[in-house]
Amino acid sequence: MQPYDLIFNKRNGGTLQPEEIEALIAGYTQGEGVTDYQMAALLMAIYFRGMNEDELGHWTRAMLHSGVVLEHPEIAGAKIDKHSTGGVGDKVSLSLAPLVAAAGVYVPMISGRGLGHTGGTLDKLESIPGFRTDLPIERFKAQVAELGCAIIGQTGEIAPADKKLYALRDVTATVDCIPLIASSIMSKKLAEGLDGLVLDVKTGRGAFMTELDQARQLAETLIAIGRATGVETVARITAMDQPLGRAVGNALEVVEAIETLRGKGPDDFLDVVLTLSAEMLRLAGVERDHQAALELLQGLIDSGAAFGKLREMVSAQGGDESVLDDLERLPRAKESFDVLAPESGFIHVLDALVVGRTARMLGAGRKAITDAIDPVAGLVLERKRGDGVDKGDRIAILYARDHSLFEPAAHRFLSGLVIGEAPIGEQPLLIDRIA
Amino acid sequence: MQPYDLIFNKRNGGTLQPEEIEALIAGYTQGEGVTDYQMAALLMAIYFRGMNEDELGHWTRAMLHSGVVLEHPEIAGAKIDKHSTGGVGDKVSLSLAPLVAAAGVYVPMISGRGLGHTGGTLDKLESIPGFRTDLPIERFKAQVAELGCAIIGQTGEIAPADKKLYALRDVTATVDCIPLIASSIMSKKLAEGLDGLVLDVKTGRGAFMTELDQARQLAETLIAIGRATGVETVARITAMDQPLGRAVGNALEVVEAIETLRGKGPDDFLDVVLTLSAEMLRLAGVERDHQAALELLQGLIDSGAAFGKLREMVSAQGGDESVLDDLERLPRAKESFDVLAPESGFIHVLDALVVGRTARMLGAGRKAITDAIDPVAGLVLERKRGDGVDKGDRIAILYARDHSLFEPAAHRFLSGLVIGEAPIGEQPLLIDRIA
Repeated sequence: MQPYDLIFNKRNGGTLQPEEIEALIAGYTQGEGVTDYQMAALLMAIYFRGMNEDELGHWTRAMLHSGVVLEHPEIAGAKIDKHSTGGVGDKVSLSLAPLVAAAGVYVPMISGRGLGHTGGTLDKLESIPGFRTDLPIERFKAQVAELGCAIIGQTGEIAPADKKLYALRDVTATVDCIPLIASSIMSKKLAEGLDGLVLDVKTGRGAFMTELDQARQLAETLIAIGRATGVETVARITAMDQPLGRAVGNALEVVEAIETLRGKGPDDFLDVVLTLSAEMLRLAGVERDHQAALELLQGLIDSGAAFGKLREMVSAQGGDESVLDDLERLPRAKESFDVLAPESGFIHVLDALVVGRTARMLGAGRKAITDAIDPVAGLVLERKRGDGVDKGDRIAILYARDHSLFEPAAHRFLSGLVIGEAPIGEQPLLIDRIA
Repeated sequence: MQPYDLIFNKRNGGTLQPEEIEALIAGYTQGEGVTDYQMAALLMAIYFRGMNEDELGHWTRAMLHSGVVLEHPEIAGAKIDKHSTGGVGDKVSLSLAPLVAAAGVYVPMISGRGLGHTGGTLDKLESIPGFRTDLPIERFKAQVAELGCAIIGQTGEIAPADKKLYALRDVTATVDCIPLIASSIMSKKLAEGLDGLVLDVKTGRGAFMTELDQARQLAETLIAIGRATGVETVARITAMDQPLGRAVGNALEVVEAIETLRGKGPDDFLDVVLTLSAEMLRLAGVERDHQAALELLQGLIDSGAAFGKLREMVSAQGGDESVLDDLERLPRAKESFDVLAPESGFIHVLDALVVGRTARMLGAGRKAITDAIDPVAGLVLERKRGDGVDKGDRIAILYARDHSLFEPAAHRFLSGLVIGEAPIGEQPLLIDRIA
């Protein structure tokens, strides 16, 4: 395998062969025979030429096998995970993992930290005092086998090829390339040793894929990789035009996720959690009928079983479980600020991207991977799209450590708010299902 | 200037701004702020997206100004150079530079070494004992001012950006990209401080641009850069389906170039030398009428003036001028081998690429830039395309240091030879003129 030949071939629209892809990814990961500049040129050629389903399968498998691939011989039941392409207020994993585990499905979730407007799932969980997301792989596996779920962070052992490739893509403008996005996602998820995977591909202003056709293309590519690698994969395309739920920020979202498992979550958030969880139950063979699965899951919330599973998970991962009973014990901002409706009418637009950036301004997110996150920062929406407001009504409460952040953040927030005179119809949250 | 933004913008089909291009090329050349992998990604994006005339002008100017740009305040007359995209048996510069200088035009020729089937102009000249192609810039300039011509090698002072970019393109499959080829050629040539430039863009089996439409596109791009940078540029597109002239190899080509200036050169080679030289006279304003220029140049050959200028140049650059009077004093192979016609008929194809590779097998060319060249190796064609042959007639004589090279080389040579029964018409050598 000469990297030059692969670049040349791909550049000219050719197809990379399985053994070429394996040698390339292995060589690049080990820093032997494949330089950064050659990989950068190849990635850009892939940006323009794409990869076919065979190539994508081999590419993903090579990334997957660049590190440890988990096996769970001690688990007899189905191992199913969920992945979201990310959005503002997306705390789905926090509620979903214990809920699905409570239904008897095993959820070995390895999650990312990312550079979103708020932290990732790990950052959110870490706002629970003591919660550890850096469990060793063996302990992670044991917890999944015992409790049914665990959520930890990406480790250097899992798909190291992806880490190296992502760092290169990040500085060479080859991040937003569907085959590379899809192989990155799937290589990490498939390394968990899954029987099935549910994808939440978000679309809209606050999503990575702003356009629906892009989101659909990504979903189809992810599913094609699942097919090529023999892991049943289902995608839901969900709306991300406004934030999901009401809380945006790390500890704030933990509160909302906990409340949802106690039956007090916002409707839109609960809807997404239940739908994705039902898909996981279907893949696991626990309940093939969607409606029945939704009822089963709602029952697990109503009975407290899902909340109990969350308690077990928090406790097993070193978290202070008393916060689950007394949410006041979670870190809280001392300062808050009310954003008021500048006019009367109906909320036509509550731009998820703008709300996300507002949260980041308040300290909830990172601009660089080395930035620290403020767990207490963020905002809670009191009104959402479609709601009627009178001038001066409180639309959102901002939270931060530092009062000086409020003025510019409120200004930013309002730049994403459109209030119109006429009432406005609902937009679908669950846009499509691709299997 | 953030390299990321430039990659992103170009990848999306955008236009790079003058100040961005300047900062990029300067940063890359100095190794400050622009990494190899970012440049590799950008080059691949340029491969797919191209550059418009403005961008190309700025890109070339930035490369040009990455190093020394010659000025010739001591020369009142026109400074005109010629560049060829290269072909098999292309020893044009060796005859053309002294010929044009003999007509009163100044020819400051900085030439490449390259990775051709035979050496480049420099390698050919260096087969003249003592000939130095590494004159310091000041001495080069003084020689041009005094004699009218000098031929030296690329120095680190001239367009260092090109050297670094070329090395990167060479390993990232971005060599065969017209805007990058064109800016590379023009940045080095324009650094010579020219008033005009004549381009010999070759097309056919033995050329870099095998297809005529590619050659035309390259010629037009080169001329566009000339326009953007204010240097009048004319291109001739010439055929490279069979080797130019009869000699292929370093010392062998020097012999042919010398004989041409003594009025004994092969017609096709002379035709190209005179045509390109006439274009240079036209750009210099010495003789605007093409036919009159051809006659003037033929007169300079017939009178011995051109040969005399070659003698002055060889002597000024430290070469043993006695070889000009006694060609036997040039290095010569001890071993030779006759390639005979395997059948009777007419030569329909004498594939320039195959002949070039044969010469390289004999030791005349390099595979890697560090390879040594054997000045005596190569071949002389006794028959060319269109010639009638009887079975057993000598078609070529191979020369090498080592007799064991002949068998495989002759085999290779014959693989590029097609003898047909019917006579075959001439193909035009001078295909087009673009100005």
